[in-house]
Amino acid sequence: MSNKRESKVRRVLIIGGGFAGLETARKLSGDSRFSVTLVDRTNHHLFQPLLYQVATASLAAPDIARSIRQILAKAENVTVLMDDIETIDPDGKVATGASGTRYEWDYLLLAAGARTSFFGNPQWEQHTLGLKSLADAQSVRRTILTNLERAERTTDLEERKKLMTVAIVGGGPTGVELAGALAALVRHSMKDEFRHLETSDLRVILIEDAKFVLSTFDNDQSEYARQRLESLGAEVRTGHRVSDVSEQRLEFTDGTSLEAAAIIWAAGVEAHPLTRQLGVPLADAAGRITPELDLSLPGKPDIFVAGDLVRMTDREGVAVPGVAPAAVQMGDHVADVLKEEARLEGTRFADTKVSLRPKFRYFDKGMMAIIGKNVAVVKAGRMKLRGFPAWVAWLLVHILFLIGFRNKLAVLLGWAFSYIKNEPEARIIVHPPADRAAG
Amino acid sequence: MSNKRESKVRRVLIIGGGFAGLETARKLSGDSRFSVTLVDRTNHHLFQPLLYQVATASLAAPDIARSIRQILAKAENVTVLMDDIETIDPDGKVATGASGTRYEWDYLLLAAGARTSFFGNPQWEQHTLGLKSLADAQSVRRTILTNLERAERTTDLEERKKLMTVAIVGGGPTGVELAGALAALVRHSMKDEFRHLETSDLRVILIEDAKFVLSTFDNDQSEYARQRLESLGAEVRTGHRVSDVSEQRLEFTDGTSLEAAAIIWAAGVEAHPLTRQLGVPLADAAGRITPELDLSLPGKPDIFVAGDLVRMTDREGVAVPGVAPAAVQMGDHVADVLKEEARLEGTRFADTKVSLRPKFRYFDKGMMAIIGKNVAVVKAGRMKLRGFPAWVAWLLVHILFLIGFRNKLAVLLGWAFSYIKNEPEARIIVHPPADRAAG
Repeated sequence: MSNKRESKVRRVLIIGGGFAGLETARKLSGDSRFSVTLVDRTNHHLFQPLLYQVATASLAAPDIARSIRQILAKAENVTVLMDDIETIDPDGKVATGASGTRYEWDYLLLAAGARTSFFGNPQWEQHTLGLKSLADAQSVRRTILTNLERAERTTDLEERKKLMTVAIVGGGPTGVELAGALAALVRHSMKDEFRHLETSDLRVILIEDAKFVLSTFDNDQSEYARQRLESLGAEVRTGHRVSDVSEQRLEFTDGTSLEAAAIIWAAGVEAHPLTRQLGVPLADAAGRITPELDLSLPGKPDIFVAGDLVRMTDREGVAVPGVAPAAVQMGDHVADVLKEEARLEGTRFADTKVSLRPKFRYFDKGMMAIIGKNVAVVKAGRMKLRGFPAWVAWLLVHILFLIGFRNKLAVLLGWAFSYIKNEPEARIIVHPPADRAAG
Repeated sequence: MSNKRESKVRRVLIIGGGFAGLETARKLSGDSRFSVTLVDRTNHHLFQPLLYQVATASLAAPDIARSIRQILAKAENVTVLMDDIETIDPDGKVATGASGTRYEWDYLLLAAGARTSFFGNPQWEQHTLGLKSLADAQSVRRTILTNLERAERTTDLEERKKLMTVAIVGGGPTGVELAGALAALVRHSMKDEFRHLETSDLRVILIEDAKFVLSTFDNDQSEYARQRLESLGAEVRTGHRVSDVSEQRLEFTDGTSLEAAAIIWAAGVEAHPLTRQLGVPLADAAGRITPELDLSLPGKPDIFVAGDLVRMTDREGVAVPGVAPAAVQMGDHVADVLKEEARLEGTRFADTKVSLRPKFRYFDKGMMAIIGKNVAVVKAGRMKLRGFPAWVAWLLVHILFLIGFRNKLAVLLGWAFSYIKNEPEARIIVHPPADRAAG
């Protein structure tokens, strides 16, 4: 093993092509000291912050996702493979994929991200829709649009009422952005399109068990977000805790219940289960890992973690949030550590190199959440914005961020048109449901 | 019934939101003498001529499809419903949908279009991919891209060879356009993206049992198309007839066979099976209907047919082809007949109105097929184009045709970028396959 380590070319295995893993691969590309293999379950890097816009028909899937091997085409020392890693042997230094392929490494970066969490109630998953992948976003879009089609068709008013009720559990940025966009799409953009139903009868109910939505923002911003959501026609229920989920039905701890044909679960995330195979204790119930300040595992200097499956405070003692900029910075840091270590190898520092590794510092680029059509809240350090100016900031940041995705101009133009015409145009059900049971 | 017919508002049921049905609905919109119901299996009108570009990752699904109720939002006398019509009672004047809904009519237009035909071998469907719907196009895209991912991963060279073989059965415009675009995408656009395979090893084999591809064009154009396809690296096998299809395997009447991980079936279409419920004899084995020259059924003046399920020669004796412009013209004609009839009703011509109905005349707007990246063949009456000028003509016609779809500028811009950068950017597998079995 140490033999491998000192050999010229170091084999780096990156699990996950999200913001963290992709950034590490980019930073190591062209560096002949490394032979990098990036493995992802899907063939694309996903710009998750805009997933809710695919779910609400403002953007098409390819607008926010791009082939990983296309992004890394010029990185000749990087091999991209689509596979679902199932086992990690941290001591044997090998991982295996669902395809049966074995992946050996000298260095491992686990950056497999997070998935929807049901807080120990996995059976709730079958009754709810998540919003973590393109497939999730298209399921949300399909379900909402199909329920509206059924509501327009049915003569059963009770049935119609249920079909026109959407429950969104979780008042974080995802829930807030989805609730706002959904209310705007149906109640406003689609208002002339039906003959039997009134789109203003659509109920979008955002459920949060904390006292405020957007609890990571300041209270006045949370209150502002609630007011804006309500002015869009969405209902906000804070201090409401879900006790049980069944088919098209939510139960709450206060004994009340809610019938909704669509239940979207944005209440929490947990680390990818692979964190349980690293041979180190988990940091929390969400299965996250707390690494050393160099992002390697305690006692396992050849294994790194980055992105949403990490729970840590940086070298300044600042808690690192689960946001895209943090993941990019972690991926960047891991690449720096590997490059520095390769430089030191064979020098007199070689034996102490782990202690010499640079320590991660998180640079806070702020948080933002968009509410409906042209309003947002932004918090960056002491700076706070709300309303239209915040939305402009949001738009700029996201457009700039979209580098490398299906061309920004086209996406921006698409947005501009939808905005002017108030007509999100990706309102397509690709896989129509078998409708036998729909009545 | 006649009572209904003479009542002020005539109930028109349109089955199918393709080029024909949508055109009739558009022409009747705002005319208070008609109450129109348009029913389609899907929620969108599809611009089928560009379906192959979704299959080959140049365009996203919403670029070529648009919500039907969005298109007809302003048509207050038109109700759009998503349902799958299963039964038609031509004498009872009622249709029923999979949802159980009953649709009564005073006039019926059946414009449900065509579907992939397996020439009496329905069992071949499970081993092949069609290209008639957005779901089809995404299946083709997913299969091609997933097979490439597997080919890059596998160390079994036989397996890799099979995974990199795509058979396209049917040398009409769809087969030719798909073969050219696919060869260009993989062999050229993706050539830097793999580390273990050579994209030039991809075999795209176009199989046609006639002597020429594009047999509806002139022979010199067919020959030109073959040469261009071969220069893109596709293989063209004319005079080759499929005798049997099994899992990843084609058998030919000459005793030869072909192993291909992807088999795309573009060999023929047949009319929607609802034509069998109209109570009139079918015109051919493809289940098409030959109407009177006013497009109504013989002896059933209240039932009309239009689009790909029609087989007829127009009033000049010209055979009407199964192309979008013909469908639009038929839809337009049906609307004219209905309006004229409403005008005559109650006049002294009322009793002879059927014989007074206008007769359909097809205006030939020509045929075009694109081959690969910037070459096409065009035939319009005596006018023939080929090569780059034909491609420019193709591009203009299609961009103009895209009116009302996700904004043309964005699509055009997307094309321009892909063209300049030679990087189709919709290369996304939305639903990654369960890969247990893939090796």
